[in-house]
Amino acid sequence: MVSESVPETIAAIVAAHRAGTVTPAQTVARSYQRIRDRGDTAIFITLRNEAEAIAEAEALAAKDPATLPLYGVPVGVKDNIDVAGLPTTAACPAFAYNATRDASAVARLRAAGAIIIGKTNLDQFATGLVGVRSPYGIPKNAIRDDLIPGGSSSGSAVAVSAGLVPLTLGTDTAGSGRVPAMLNNIVGLKPSLGLIPTAGVVPACRTLDCVSIFTLTVDDAVAALDVMGGYDAHDPYSRKRVPGSLTEFPKGLKLGVPRNGQLIFFGDKASEKAYADALKRWTSLGATLVEFDLEPFYETARLLYDGPWVAERLLVIRDLLASAPDAIHPVTREITIAGARQSATDTFAALYKLQELKRVAEQAFTAIDALVLPTAPTAYTTAQVLANPIELNSRLGTYTNFVNLLDLCGLAIPAAMRADGIPFGITLLAPGGEDALLASIGRVFHADTKLPVGARALPQPALALLSTELAAGEIAIAVVGAHLSGMALNGELTALNGRLLKATTTAPDYKFYALNGTTPAKPGLLRVADGTGSEIAVEVWALSAEAFGKFVASLPQPMSIGTLTLCDGSNVKGFLVEAKATEDARDISSFGGWRAYMAEKK
Amino acid sequence: MVSESVPETIAAIVAAHRAGTVTPAQTVARSYQRIRDRGDTAIFITLRNEAEAIAEAEALAAKDPATLPLYGVPVGVKDNIDVAGLPTTAACPAFAYNATRDASAVARLRAAGAIIIGKTNLDQFATGLVGVRSPYGIPKNAIRDDLIPGGSSSGSAVAVSAGLVPLTLGTDTAGSGRVPAMLNNIVGLKPSLGLIPTAGVVPACRTLDCVSIFTLTVDDAVAALDVMGGYDAHDPYSRKRVPGSLTEFPKGLKLGVPRNGQLIFFGDKASEKAYADALKRWTSLGATLVEFDLEPFYETARLLYDGPWVAERLLVIRDLLASAPDAIHPVTREITIAGARQSATDTFAALYKLQELKRVAEQAFTAIDALVLPTAPTAYTTAQVLANPIELNSRLGTYTNFVNLLDLCGLAIPAAMRADGIPFGITLLAPGGEDALLASIGRVFHADTKLPVGARALPQPALALLSTELAAGEIAIAVVGAHLSGMALNGELTALNGRLLKATTTAPDYKFYALNGTTPAKPGLLRVADGTGSEIAVEVWALSAEAFGKFVASLPQPMSIGTLTLCDGSNVKGFLVEAKATEDARDISSFGGWRAYMAEKK
Repeated sequence: MVSESVPETIAAIVAAHRAGTVTPAQTVARSYQRIRDRGDTAIFITLRNEAEAIAEAEALAAKDPATLPLYGVPVGVKDNIDVAGLPTTAACPAFAYNATRDASAVARLRAAGAIIIGKTNLDQFATGLVGVRSPYGIPKNAIRDDLIPGGSSSGSAVAVSAGLVPLTLGTDTAGSGRVPAMLNNIVGLKPSLGLIPTAGVVPACRTLDCVSIFTLTVDDAVAALDVMGGYDAHDPYSRKRVPGSLTEFPKGLKLGVPRNGQLIFFGDKASEKAYADALKRWTSLGATLVEFDLEPFYETARLLYDGPWVAERLLVIRDLLASAPDAIHPVTREITIAGARQSATDTFAALYKLQELKRVAEQAFTAIDALVLPTAPTAYTTAQVLANPIELNSRLGTYTNFVNLLDLCGLAIPAAMRADGIPFGITLLAPGGEDALLASIGRVFHADTKLPVGARALPQPALALLSTELAAGEIAIAVVGAHLSGMALNGELTALNGRLLKATTTAPDYKFYALNGTTPAKPGLLRVADGTGSEIAVEVWALSAEAFGKFVASLPQPMSIGTLTLCDGSNVKGFLVEAKATEDARDISSFGGWRAYMAEKK
Repeated sequence: MVSESVPETIAAIVAAHRAGTVTPAQTVARSYQRIRDRGDTAIFITLRNEAEAIAEAEALAAKDPATLPLYGVPVGVKDNIDVAGLPTTAACPAFAYNATRDASAVARLRAAGAIIIGKTNLDQFATGLVGVRSPYGIPKNAIRDDLIPGGSSSGSAVAVSAGLVPLTLGTDTAGSGRVPAMLNNIVGLKPSLGLIPTAGVVPACRTLDCVSIFTLTVDDAVAALDVMGGYDAHDPYSRKRVPGSLTEFPKGLKLGVPRNGQLIFFGDKASEKAYADALKRWTSLGATLVEFDLEPFYETARLLYDGPWVAERLLVIRDLLASAPDAIHPVTREITIAGARQSATDTFAALYKLQELKRVAEQAFTAIDALVLPTAPTAYTTAQVLANPIELNSRLGTYTNFVNLLDLCGLAIPAAMRADGIPFGITLLAPGGEDALLASIGRVFHADTKLPVGARALPQPALALLSTELAAGEIAIAVVGAHLSGMALNGELTALNGRLLKATTTAPDYKFYALNGTTPAKPGLLRVADGTGSEIAVEVWALSAEAFGKFVASLPQPMSIGTLTLCDGSNVKGFLVEAKATEDARDISSFGGWRAYMAEKK
């Protein structure tokens, strides 16, 4: 981590708070000051009382900072997500109510030490990708103030880009967590369906809604996802999914790119070029680009807006439409009432079609790890959108509308700053559950662009070190021979999505042998009396229980998996050899490890 | 297996064919003869040309019988499932079409050696639980001919009960594979959603439809499920589920029974008593009965018929309703047109409610392995149902309507023959994916009733031996000590759904030690030079890869899992001990195994 004199990212802020160089209260106060300095009252619909927020930040002192992954991080919350004690408006004053409890996602943020400072503006009822459909004004795009902020999570994206807070929550049903990220040169993480609970969120399309994350860096987004992700028994749409763990950039990564002629940029040559450049960057990073057929994805997107899902939006505001239709933004009203024209038969017919399209998408992903697409095909000014509010909005969703219907996860990342000062971004998409894969590759791409982050053009911090902690459900295994990084059988671990935790040595209780007649050449580790052996170099890898089971099952005689004692006295599963196989083997303990022995041998 | 002079079950028929005591052609001819003898033309809508079926049976001789699990088994197929070369009518002549290819389930049956002999009658469009809604007549109940046959799979259930064929396919959306099984004293297996593909099936409610199985015994149903179960990429509603493997009756089985006052029998005291008797039988078999709240399940059932799913049925016949409404059975028409009144908002509102109810059901199953309910609350005569066709039909679905909506699997089993000659049955229900659990316990229950099977009152054959083959995805592990059946740590294997494959011994290459200072007492197996050791008793258990991984991870030093060589020369993963731990341990190889040593020690 590059040290920052003024900490701006979540990682830097938490580090500064833990180090005591800045207090959480100071950081919170700084957010309020910056909000005042910016003077754009359209970003937040409701600001929390500053003294109250600072008091909450001060109260964190009673807790152990090591247990608070978001220790003192100021957070903005899109105003369709409940924060106890603040009104939830969904950008419709007539709809507003006072939330008496936190949404599940918000409660998890607070429990992790985050301080909520306010509720951000949005396209009313989260209907729109533009950010201009709100009676609370249009937040100014943080990068170029004639551009739309993007929506529906307009205020959340601008707040992060402008440096008001390092983390905001959005929601994403058809692109609301991605399009505004691109337009403000920040990261937008749209998790897999059901990974972050939606309990306490005003629904848009309840079957498709996700809580999304805006941050300056991918690492920050992952930190927030780690806090908010996980099953919530109180949310019927929550799923038993986990955020997963970051890994190294995988070897042999295959990225899907649309077939020739399938890309749409609405004539925007700068976007087209920026996308082509991004693909070149992926290639230079080691990814292989694989063409796939985007048409079924477009077909899915058409289902969303021509199909019955708009009836879900109607369910949310049906009462209000009946009692006070004028209280609803005219564009939102026009879009939503279309839901009344759809029947149950229309709905099931669309669900059948979607199920078929899901199968086509699944098939596409058998040959591809992730798709890489433009986040949006182009950008528009506020004046353009106000003149043509529905069509231009619809264009912005070209590459986002199909995602939630197909249960894909998405990660929008800055890719370029165009010569005209408009940010361009790409989105990575993968099947639900692959959130960690997207982050693992997206962070490397973003770092490689060396783009300054947000509107304040801050330099990117160094990538966070990969976690060396075992995640829930993982099993650690110590390898000593051909499975070490870079050696002949290491691919068996990476093929099982193994994750290197650390390199260390055993306790001095082992003898180490070069076994005879093994291909590839293999060593054997044998425990002897405590303290009478050598410390042998090992790598500890993390595997899921299923992958660990498959790995153990695949090992040949005379290998076995037992319990190794490491130099720090801890125990871990790891490779041992049957004593019989060492009888005619050379004792290579003096090399201290397989890598040293093999190097010598060459 | 008790030998039968005339083979009647699938198991006996396949055994006879393999032994050559009966030929497939003879068995097929016998089916046609029995159909003629019975003289009920309402059972089959279309019979396949006999000579053609016999020719297909004769052609099986070119194949290896050992590769055909249904070698020469005659099968009836409900007439809403496509069989190439035969018309599919769905019991509506105006709807009929000639099927040019087999439904996926039928193709799998044929590939396994089954011979399709005809298409069975049903409640038109599989709408109904009574079996009286067909222009092709009312199949006579095989047990008591004044009773309805039950539906919608009426012909399929009667055909098996009457001994015309040992296996038929039904479909089940709301009970059509279970209610007629009860009313004909046979077994009805309704698999988990998506386990048997529905490609080539005329939909009823496409999101809920299952192909179901009628047989005389649970073992026969499992044999058919093993053939038909599994993913089908051509069916959008297929899921990556597997049939699973039969196990011993699990210790500590917890069965859910409704709270006091929640059961409904519509005044039928004989059903009420038969159900109470069935519960006593479960207790005597070692199950613990646990009360649960049935109300959310009833609420789900109400959603099905008051809610939007009837619009799915409407989608199937909408064109026909418009062009030739009189071609549709009046009761079916009346029920189905209700689907036109439901809107998209109604549909999503119902889907939300269902999602909530699914969570309640999931919660119920955290304390319960399976539910045990009456299959139907009572039975009716044909005359009663014709006089009150909708209400009585609805009553029959009391315990079946909610099942597919909640993605439960179900197994309907005969439980009693009432004094009035009406069969009573129970249904086991468990979360989707637990089909093998239901079969594993249901077969023991059915055997314990000693009820004769079907209408011909055949004695039940002995239960099939459990498979000793490793199923796809399983890993075998040889245990040598406290994990053996009945010993201190065996519960660790059964808690992981481990399945005993066989007891055997190692090759004579091992020494066996009683380790010092282990609690519970544990042995250690150490490989020595080939042929210089002892054959040590082991048990080989099957675990899923995930369970195997967790199990290996849980073992303490000095245990390890390596590769054992068994007495037949095969290799299997299994327990070894670190040589160091044997240094001060007693050599107990002469006992030949841990069980013998522990017996001696006492």
